Amino acid sequence: MSTGQFADVTAVTEVSPGNFTGEISPEWTIGGKPNGGYLLAMIGRAAVGVVPQEQVLAISAHYLRSPEPGPAQIETEVLRSGRSASQVRARLVQEGAACVETLVTIGSLEAEAKPYWEGGLPVIEPVDRADGIRIEGPSPTGMPLAMMSQVDLRIDPSCLGFALGKPSGRGELHGWLALPDNADFDPLSLIFAVDAFPPATLDVEITGWVPTLELTVYVRALPAPGPVRVLQKAQLVDAGRVDEVCYVWDSTGRLVAHGTQLAGIRLG
Amino acid sequence: MSTGQFADVTAVTEVSPGNFTGEISPEWTIGGKPNGGYLLAMIGRAAVGVVPQEQVLAISAHYLRSPEPGPAQIETEVLRSGRSASQVRARLVQEGAACVETLVTIGSLEAEAKPYWEGGLPVIEPVDRADGIRIEGPSPTGMPLAMMSQVDLRIDPSCLGFALGKPSGRGELHGWLALPDNADFDPLSLIFAVDAFPPATLDVEITGWVPTLELTVYVRALPAPGPVRVLQKAQLVDAGRVDEVCYVWDSTGRLVAHGTQLAGIRLG
Repeated sequence: MSTGQFADVTAVTEVSPGNFTGEISPEWTIGGKPNGGYLLAMIGRAAVGVVPQEQVLAISAHYLRSPEPGPAQIETEVLRSGRSASQVRARLVQEGAACVETLVTIGSLEAEAKPYWEGGLPVIEPVDRADGIRIEGPSPTGMPLAMMSQVDLRIDPSCLGFALGKPSGRGELHGWLALPDNADFDPLSLIFAVDAFPPATLDVEITGWVPTLELTVYVRALPAPGPVRVLQKAQLVDAGRVDEVCYVWDSTGRLVAHGTQLAGIRLG
Repeated sequence: MSTGQFADVTAVTEVSPGNFTGEISPEWTIGGKPNGGYLLAMIGRAAVGVVPQEQVLAISAHYLRSPEPGPAQIETEVLRSGRSASQVRARLVQEGAACVETLVTIGSLEAEAKPYWEGGLPVIEPVDRADGIRIEGPSPTGMPLAMMSQVDLRIDPSCLGFALGKPSGRGELHGWLALPDNADFDPLSLIFAVDAFPPATLDVEITGWVPTLELTVYVRALPAPGPVRVLQKAQLVDAGRVDEVCYVWDSTGRLVAHGTQLAGIRLG
């Protein structure tokens, strides 16, 4: 099983069949609000606890309201328990109010599987992680970024125009992510990785809070040890909403997770 | 409200508060199985019936088992009823078995909204729809395609290598989609549009059935009248699974919907 600080802050305890408790850490917050991918990893951990298979293959979340740091409950319901895959509904609840509703498909990732075809993935010019600039708080709009003191998140210098008030306009943030103590990633922390980066809209125009409405993550392979490389990319800002896609490669250059999100934004 | 044959085949009737019945058409099937996007449009129609807002903004579906053509029930549960957006859980059930589980965020799309920034969207060289080749059944592997007699789905000739046994290897199918009687699209039929195309893996290697495990659709704008243009794109085939992204533009060239899916495939 996974160990380390990330495993600790996403730990859940089954208190009755299918019902779990967890403790949302105040350190895994952005602007005081728990990071959505962090919450999703905690929910995923509960979901894999109620079916025979071990790995989240796909998790879709709709965010109803932001919980506060502190105790939370995760209620699960097995929708179908199959031979090769199972489906679970899981919701995070705090003080009786549903905060995050999810559907999870759980199956098995083979340790030795190789990509068969990856011709549709974006290709990024190789850059050295040592040249990345570490993100710490506060954000360009003054928001405290407690989570950035926990992880080591570095941005490719070619995407850092926003820090000088000159976004490139490409809507792309490319960089690297390492967990506390450089712990190895696993399928649950990969779920977090897909929502760890700042909004890629920073590379278009600097705005405040970009609250996630929906986030879907696919975990595609077991990651190799070491930091992951991440590309967060905005596609369309339209009438107060933006969608972003995110790709995560492990240290061997293999795509291990990706996802898409719809978020609110004060533009358009 | 929407009218026409598509509205008819996705019609639902509320038989008790939050519980609907519908009739899955045998004509909206691929290989005898109801199309996943068609089912999702029917589910979305039930979901918007139980909250104040009118348009599906985001819908995420996990497919548990394929229903058969014939009667089905849709059970909804309002998760949160908000001022600007609401969230609903909706599941399609047949003969007591849950077939499709969904979460839906419902809100309002403004009629006059213009895209604010679309720099992250793929750009396709303009091609004339009249040059598109209409897809009819059976598939390259002999599968009957009843649905293709209902819609007018045309593929850009540059993506048709698979029909000659020579896929381009790009993993892209670009083309156009029109509803029966050339009915106008609306946010519900756009959900269908995101899953209407053949698997883009045809442009990599011809395989049989590619069953959807998870499908998430974002509806971004109210579509203009007329057929829509669609790009279906595979990204990564890995260990028996593939993900595909899909973009849908209306007749004015505005992106109106997009989505992502994870599916099973007998490759890798």
